[in-house]
Amino acid sequence: MVFVAEPVARLVEALSKLPGIGPKSAHRLTYHILDSPDEEARALAEAIVALKEKIRLCSTCFNVTDCDPCVICRDSERDSSRVCVVERPSDIVPLERTGKYKGLYHVLHGSISPAQGIGSEQLKVRELLTRLENGAVKEVILATNPNLEGEATAMYLRRVVTSPDIRVSRLARGLPFGAELEYADDMTLSQAIEGRQEF
Amino acid sequence: MVFVAEPVARLVEALSKLPGIGPKSAHRLTYHILDSPDEEARALAEAIVALKEKIRLCSTCFNVTDCDPCVICRDSERDSSRVCVVERPSDIVPLERTGKYKGLYHVLHGSISPAQGIGSEQLKVRELLTRLENGAVKEVILATNPNLEGEATAMYLRRVVTSPDIRVSRLARGLPFGAELEYADDMTLSQAIEGRQEF
Repeated sequence: MVFVAEPVARLVEALSKLPGIGPKSAHRLTYHILDSPDEEARALAEAIVALKEKIRLCSTCFNVTDCDPCVICRDSERDSSRVCVVERPSDIVPLERTGKYKGLYHVLHGSISPAQGIGSEQLKVRELLTRLENGAVKEVILATNPNLEGEATAMYLRRVVTSPDIRVSRLARGLPFGAELEYADDMTLSQAIEGRQEF
Repeated sequence: MVFVAEPVARLVEALSKLPGIGPKSAHRLTYHILDSPDEEARALAEAIVALKEKIRLCSTCFNVTDCDPCVICRDSERDSSRVCVVERPSDIVPLERTGKYKGLYHVLHGSISPAQGIGSEQLKVRELLTRLENGAVKEVILATNPNLEGEATAMYLRRVVTSPDIRVSRLARGLPFGAELEYADDMTLSQAIEGRQEF
């Protein structure tokens, strides 16, 4: 693209590498940043740099954090007898947004995927089991994704969490809110029938 | 959002200010940047800073550029007898992508909008007329947007470009490629009928 100035082309290219941002969006964003106040653009650039510089993993739950232990692990008002196991740090955001969960988390940093050569030893599984050793945790809630890898990971964890004092649960499967039966896929509907709840 | 680390929240907020990026996309992008290599994140931050530092307006055509005159104005292989008038620097990108136009450009930096209190004097209209004075330009192609403001601007320019030696044209109106007559709006179809072309 010889017809656009180099700094424009450079930002378009950098933005195009982000997920869900195609060349057209990258152009639109670049010209928006060009038009926006200097402070706003600088704030964005600095936020990117700060993110990479300051963020590390919590040594307890392996969530991303700028302090250790993270704000969730150090919050004494949370229920430390429950640990919700998620695949990625970003999975914590929607769970917290519900306001329904006040326990702690454990981030696996992935899921078991033989296809991609990812086994349990590449995930923070050993760290989870160590965390459960002192007997303080009474419930482990498996919140891996409802797909093949997530299910495989949940089943593996179900097997290795062997303490009889720890309840192992997982997020309910069923029809999503707002769904229509007519359009529900077989798998979802099967799980909704199998897991039918008292009403 | 007390449950996410401050650097995460900060980048989410900065990204949310960009057009078309809601809170969910901003989260997704933030966690993607967190996972991506340091160099990639730094390249993005630096591209944003460089954009704001290096880009100014071409003193001839008022396109955004890092050199003056811009790469288009200084390209001796382009047809300097034609000037295509656009509202925004970003409008040049799709026009260049067609490969159908080899002339120069003139960026107005907006359109006439009484509702928003924008008159011709806030646009680069005077600069356009000055550019036309030496007689080198033989055709002005109006490529303002096909909406109310763009039409008003085109009509205004049609009136003020008074030299009989300059042909004033505008981009064709009609059915977009891939459209279906059944779903075309009245305005588009009316313009397609009025502007019907020899075949």
